[in-house]
Amino acid sequence: MARNLIQAGVKLRVYNRTASKTAELVALGAAAATTPAETVTPGGIVITMLANDQAVEEVVRGPRGIGERLDNGGVHLSISTISPALARRLAELHHRSDAAYVAAPVFGRPAAAAARKLWICVSGPPAAKARVAPLLRILGQATYDLGDDAAAAHMMKLAGNFLIFSMIESLAEALALAEKSGLSRADVLNVLTQSLFNCPLYHTYGRLLTVQDYAKPGFRLALALKDLNLLRDTAEKSGTPMPVASLLHERMSSAVARGRGEWDLCAMALGAEEDAGLEPASKERAL
Amino acid sequence: MARNLIQAGVKLRVYNRTASKTAELVALGAAAATTPAETVTPGGIVITMLANDQAVEEVVRGPRGIGERLDNGGVHLSISTISPALARRLAELHHRSDAAYVAAPVFGRPAAAAARKLWICVSGPPAAKARVAPLLRILGQATYDLGDDAAAAHMMKLAGNFLIFSMIESLAEALALAEKSGLSRADVLNVLTQSLFNCPLYHTYGRLLTVQDYAKPGFRLALALKDLNLLRDTAEKSGTPMPVASLLHERMSSAVARGRGEWDLCAMALGAEEDAGLEPASKERAL
Amino acid sequence: MARNLIQAGVKLRVYNRTASKTAELVALGAAAATTPAETVTPGGIVITMLANDQAVEEVVRGPRGIGERLDNGGVHLSISTISPALARRLAELHHRSDAAYVAAPVFGRPAAAAARKLWICVSGPPAAKARVAPLLRILGQATYDLGDDAAAAHMMKLAGNFLIFSMIESLAEALALAEKSGLSRADVLNVLTQSLFNCPLYHTYGRLLTVQDYAKPGFRLALALKDLNLLRDTAEKSGTPMPVASLLHERMSSAVARGRGEWDLCAMALGAEEDAGLEPASKERAL
Amino acid sequence: MARNLIQAGVKLRVYNRTASKTAELVALGAAAATTPAETVTPGGIVITMLANDQAVEEVVRGPRGIGERLDNGGVHLSISTISPALARRLAELHHRSDAAYVAAPVFGRPAAAAARKLWICVSGPPAAKARVAPLLRILGQATYDLGDDAAAAHMMKLAGNFLIFSMIESLAEALALAEKSGLSRADVLNVLTQSLFNCPLYHTYGRLLTVQDYAKPGFRLALALKDLNLLRDTAEKSGTPMPVASLLHERMSSAVARGRGEWDLCAMALGAEEDAGLEPASKERAL
Repeated sequence: MARNLIQAGVKLRVYNRTASKTAELVALGAAAATTPAETVTPGGIVITMLANDQAVEEVVRGPRGIGERLDNGGVHLSISTISPALARRLAELHHRSDAAYVAAPVFGRPAAAAARKLWICVSGPPAAKARVAPLLRILGQATYDLGDDAAAAHMMKLAGNFLIFSMIESLAEALALAEKSGLSRADVLNVLTQSLFNCPLYHTYGRLLTVQDYAKPGFRLALALKDLNLLRDTAEKSGTPMPVASLLHERMSSAVARGRGEWDLCAMALGAEEDAGLEPASKERAL
Repeated sequence: MARNLIQAGVKLRVYNRTASKTAELVALGAAAATTPAETVTPGGIVITMLANDQAVEEVVRGPRGIGERLDNGGVHLSISTISPALARRLAELHHRSDAAYVAAPVFGRPAAAAARKLWICVSGPPAAKARVAPLLRILGQATYDLGDDAAAAHMMKLAGNFLIFSMIESLAEALALAEKSGLSRADVLNVLTQSLFNCPLYHTYGRLLTVQDYAKPGFRLALALKDLNLLRDTAEKSGTPMPVASLLHERMSSAVARGRGEWDLCAMALGAEEDAGLEPASKERAL
Repeated sequence: MARNLIQAGVKLRVYNRTASKTAELVALGAAAATTPAETVTPGGIVITMLANDQAVEEVVRGPRGIGERLDNGGVHLSISTISPALARRLAELHHRSDAAYVAAPVFGRPAAAAARKLWICVSGPPAAKARVAPLLRILGQATYDLGDDAAAAHMMKLAGNFLIFSMIESLAEALALAEKSGLSRADVLNVLTQSLFNCPLYHTYGRLLTVQDYAKPGFRLALALKDLNLLRDTAEKSGTPMPVASLLHERMSSAVARGRGEWDLCAMALGAEEDAGLEPASKERAL
Repeated sequence: MARNLIQAGVKLRVYNRTASKTAELVALGAAAATTPAETVTPGGIVITMLANDQAVEEVVRGPRGIGERLDNGGVHLSISTISPALARRLAELHHRSDAAYVAAPVFGRPAAAAARKLWICVSGPPAAKARVAPLLRILGQATYDLGDDAAAAHMMKLAGNFLIFSMIESLAEALALAEKSGLSRADVLNVLTQSLFNCPLYHTYGRLLTVQDYAKPGFRLALALKDLNLLRDTAEKSGTPMPVASLLHERMSSAVARGRGEWDLCAMALGAEEDAGLEPASKERAL
């Protein structure tokens, strides 16, 4: 995403806790910052893309954090998948400095990000959203406006990820049954993705579940479990029982407990396969 | 489907246990049969489209059933959603009379059937499949060949239905959470169906779950539960634990126990809504 | 149980499909029958203790079955764990010959049977129950009368077994958590069985889950799964969603799919242990 | 519990956020404190019995909290059901003041507390445990020592509560099935509590589920859900998937979402009853 911004002519000042990780971007023309605060131009736009709530909170509120410099007219464009609750707290924090928080989490695996094919959900103050719109057009193929509430786009992102995880589990169960009944995984996927389920997600994950190659992470399982836990916390606080979310939690936390946290999200499918007594072809490959 | 065949010039002899139900087809030019056996031309093709295993077994094996007349070169084109186990038994039965069983269950709600937009899965002996191919082209937009095993297409159908039910439950949970978090159902569906889940199924069911109008049955909930139970039986026999299928069973059997068996399949979404303490707008309408 | 009857002076004529299995009883004084029908004295009492519905149906209705000879005043004392539906069918069958069906399933593992400590649930016609009462007093420590309906005692038995399986799963999850939190299994069981859960079942199964020795079958896992499936069928037919029963089904059918069907019921606890990434001490022993 | 201590001759200085709640104890001879700190005698013993983690943290660490005065040789006897994680943090805090934390959560409903029949789990430094032992003997019928780790007794308490909740859900499902199958709830409970499940817990909760009177809280459902969530957090942190705990969460959070949080824990049984389409006799009474 940063590469796409630079190549579109956007001037970036970049920061990463591990300095070497910004080397590629600096080689492409970005300036290097040594603290989060240094990435902020007063009244400018600062983008965060981090792994979890803790990292975002640290980079905003910690010493030499973004919060120290972002002020009058500044915009914090927050792309990370974080909790709706944290988004609201940061929105209030920036509001007190006359700055704005724009939530802009994205859907799409790494290949989609590289190809500028991300789908972006935004929410926040209208003026700030208008100001970041040109940047979002560089990053993605479409932007969906979910209103003024800082939490809304993050809530949408968590719901979308939940539906992805749910689809993987259901597909894994269906394919385990098909395999035990003598059907080929490829045939089943072929029917599904040419008919009722002819959509990007089933094509992408269907292929991964057919070749059963789970070890190379496009979306790390441990990170996906983090997202699911954000959803479960939100569901708990709002009093929404979600039995499918609980079932996904069992699958994913078991996969992590068995040492598969650094594999791709799809490795959660091994649960259904192993429960059925199948010995997945890819398991050896994966290990 | 029968109407489409007649309008395409196919000569039909039609039978229904309740004679009045064939009146419309007779008016369109079909001949009326008074027993299942009468619908069979020796060496010809006979089509069954019935509610469940019991009905199909009765019509084939019962007195004056299809089995009595279907012989040398005849083809039984079986469109109903039935158990893979029954399909195998019927295939053997017909085989002993030198007739053939072709499984051809379809995906698509009533509107798709009327518009000849069904997706059809077939399996059975190659020659018999070739013979029925022209009929299937009249009924649907695409046919998927799943091999020689009579059970294969039915297995595929059960797996597809399972994925549909699973999608509805997951979407119902996500929408309940979204609603309790202040997002609109329409906004959430708009994002999903324009991005990751841009496929026929999410458009169709997404709309129904957004308007929350569950009373008018396109696919009766009690019939959907019957299909799910066929899947669960098959899973049990093959030793495939399917936790999502179990969860769906709880939802659907509870809906039937509460008197919603004649509503649309989507009424299973009321489970997630009620569990969250929501009072669905459509509930009154539905009752 | 047969041994206890003989030792109490009851004259037995015994039959088993595998003749060698009755050798011990014949040595103790029982007569050997070569067909089920031969075990029946007209107007007498015949006892069945078999693995499942199919076996009981075969022995009663099959050629040279009990049903051929049991007549006027005869009593069929049915100790097997079978479906309530089959019990009702057999009660009707015997009723037509002026004989009676008395359901008398038992609770207790093999050691309890040997020690005449079984708990027995009975249901059926009052006169027939009174007639078999002396036999039941030889076999068990207590008898519970559940009324006239042939199905009632079997329903009670299925419900009791369900509660046993549920207790094992819950205990397995609690012990997995305790172990991962640094508590010893023995300490946890000690608290439970000395306080709230000071009852036979927690003592028996608590000990097995503490030593984690699952390979020696007192109650075979595959047989327990059969009982659970009878419960699930009954629940399905009566429209009673039972989410815990579904969850138990996943655990037990997965254990069978992994080749543990001949182990003790307690081996279902390996599911919770493996899901948590624990390597149970007894696993090697068991294999 | 406080009443029992006073009546046994223990001098108490009592504090409650709502002063009127201590009036009864003061009438019995206790002194009234106006802040948590005032309840502490340097080097003495201070007991906390509060609803949740937040309340305990506030009373210990808040302004005029226990932590300000408890020092050299003092003991904090913590009876509340709190998270193992908080127990460890408080143990460290007290340790820095040369004071000790003794965990002593209890099992038993209000009637058991009044009758000095509680079961008490303790963990903490041996000398501090020895010092509080005489107090615990006044409160309960038995004490179980779970070692030195401040978290251990709380972990045990959460596991025990989980097993209680699990028993209620399983029993509720079994009774719903029995009722739909024509068995009486009282008959079923009679068999269970006289045989396999002849233990205090099944007697207590079995009676409540038989009369189906859920409105009068002995253990408030909302508080039970809080305990379950502490267990789930601990399970999540330790990587222990607990499917039964998830299922209980759905039941209990749904009951709270439907406005039953102030009813007795047993009201969670209404979930299984309503899912089966039963109209519980007590529902009207309860409302």
